[in-house]
Amino acid sequence: MTTPPFETRDPGFAARVRASFARQAAMDTLGATLERVEPGRVHIALPFSMRLTQQHGFLHAGMVATALDSACGYAGSTLMPADAGVLTIEFKINLLAPAQGVRFRMEGLVIKPGRTIVVTEGRALAIDAQGREKLVATMGATLMTVTGRDDVRH
Amino acid sequence: MTTPPFETRDPGFAARVRASFARQAAMDTLGATLERVEPGRVHIALPFSMRLTQQHGFLHAGMVATALDSACGYAGSTLMPADAGVLTIEFKINLLAPAQGVRFRMEGLVIKPGRTIVVTEGRALAIDAQGREKLVATMGATLMTVTGRDDVRH
Amino acid sequence: MTTPPFETRDPGFAARVRASFARQAAMDTLGATLERVEPGRVHIALPFSMRLTQQHGFLHAGMVATALDSACGYAGSTLMPADAGVLTIEFKINLLAPAQGVRFRMEGLVIKPGRTIVVTEGRALAIDAQGREKLVATMGATLMTVTGRDDVRH
Amino acid sequence: MTTPPFETRDPGFAARVRASFARQAAMDTLGATLERVEPGRVHIALPFSMRLTQQHGFLHAGMVATALDSACGYAGSTLMPADAGVLTIEFKINLLAPAQGVRFRMEGLVIKPGRTIVVTEGRALAIDAQGREKLVATMGATLMTVTGRDDVRH
Repeated sequence: MTTPPFETRDPGFAARVRASFARQAAMDTLGATLERVEPGRVHIALPFSMRLTQQHGFLHAGMVATALDSACGYAGSTLMPADAGVLTIEFKINLLAPAQGVRFRMEGLVIKPGRTIVVTEGRALAIDAQGREKLVATMGATLMTVTGRDDVRH
Repeated sequence: MTTPPFETRDPGFAARVRASFARQAAMDTLGATLERVEPGRVHIALPFSMRLTQQHGFLHAGMVATALDSACGYAGSTLMPADAGVLTIEFKINLLAPAQGVRFRMEGLVIKPGRTIVVTEGRALAIDAQGREKLVATMGATLMTVTGRDDVRH
Repeated sequence: MTTPPFETRDPGFAARVRASFARQAAMDTLGATLERVEPGRVHIALPFSMRLTQQHGFLHAGMVATALDSACGYAGSTLMPADAGVLTIEFKINLLAPAQGVRFRMEGLVIKPGRTIVVTEGRALAIDAQGREKLVATMGATLMTVTGRDDVRH
Repeated sequence: MTTPPFETRDPGFAARVRASFARQAAMDTLGATLERVEPGRVHIALPFSMRLTQQHGFLHAGMVATALDSACGYAGSTLMPADAGVLTIEFKINLLAPAQGVRFRMEGLVIKPGRTIVVTEGRALAIDAQGREKLVATMGATLMTVTGRDDVRH
């Protein structure tokens, strides 16, 4: 995916995203960590864990989606005002191959940064013991910028 | 959602689905349990847990998706032959309201049972302390029936 | 699909929707007509036409989507303020069976009427010469209420 | 979007795709033409036409989807065996900006060529009188390879 260079409206976007990520208990449950936080782009690292598998021993599609949704949501968040919150309106995920690997990289990227609606794309890469990467899922996620609500911030 | 009456091709479908669910480590991580297993319809119960939340304290959209995807996948599985495996090709989820509640019911329903492709719909209901239900998410999931692969069974 | 009873904010919603539909040149190109206009629900009728087919002689999936998108959009529009415009943010369509029939009914229904975001579902029914109906496609569409823009009204 | 180099299984893929496109009456109704036909990639050109508009005078989202769906479907078709047919299982489209322009280019690209399931992505570009391009929509479409059915070929 190629991207235009994005400009943030909040110079403190990276610290804001990292603080919010730290409050996502679901990321801790997954064992996920923030890898890259740039304007319009966020990568999340996820080690394989048996606790996250479906019945065939692959990563559960929903767990792939959980990490990808956070990657997409925070990619959008990097471009939002400092006091805005981000909500996922909807996402779609295509599972291209079994999510097998020793670790995964979930990439979120802004495609269209609107004032209210932000459209993002995500890609899940499985990485094997030799470091080889394989695309296992793609996501399209639509976000809404929320302002003026105390229960939805950052 | 209204549904046609579905006929299973495997009289042992309920035991098969329950055994497969028990092998989904992700469901154990979520604290999810199987509630209803009928031809073409599966309900999964999920208690609220702080471990599954996003930054505002709501259930993470991906965790909602994880339980809904299993509900949809097993709804499809009830109609499949005994030796078939089920894979999710894609799903889309719309988040209608914050996933707040003391517990949740994830409903999966077959809309179109094809030989290879099975189309399902899911609904996530949040239930508050008074037992009131609220629709918080809808899913559309497309499944594939897989036969003859030892690594993808049930 | 079951629906809550919806209340419109504009008593003139039906006339407003019919006037807007008449301005959609694409509906005329399709030969589509408005059938039912109720709060939160719009049906569009579409006769089969060779001009709308794909290579196998079925209705083109995109043409099914065009009529369904209008049904969903106008379903949302019935609940919007008199001066608001409606834009489709995204939609997803599942093609369940070949779109074969002498005519089609496209049903749009509001699932969640929000102030800014409105979520809808659509169903395409093919009707044969004997009047038998068959579900051939389902849609999920997300709309945005737009106010204060002169180029996006009704 | 970057793509791996794809190999076709049918050296006559381009002629086959062009012949099938010529049988899609819907493309003629749109005024669409085939621009590029390569392994895993198809571009369709579409001039603006008032006949295809919605109520604000933009191209109707469904008409954008119709041309994009054909671009994605034929992109998949280039990689299929000579005797196979292609069916769209589902697609999702995000409308990023009003579809305004003097002409449009609809790009379809294969992301994952499977034996049965083929996943594709599409992009709709609006082109103004000065030749400037703007991304107005993205699509994700899932196709199925169909063999052995006389009513679904090419």
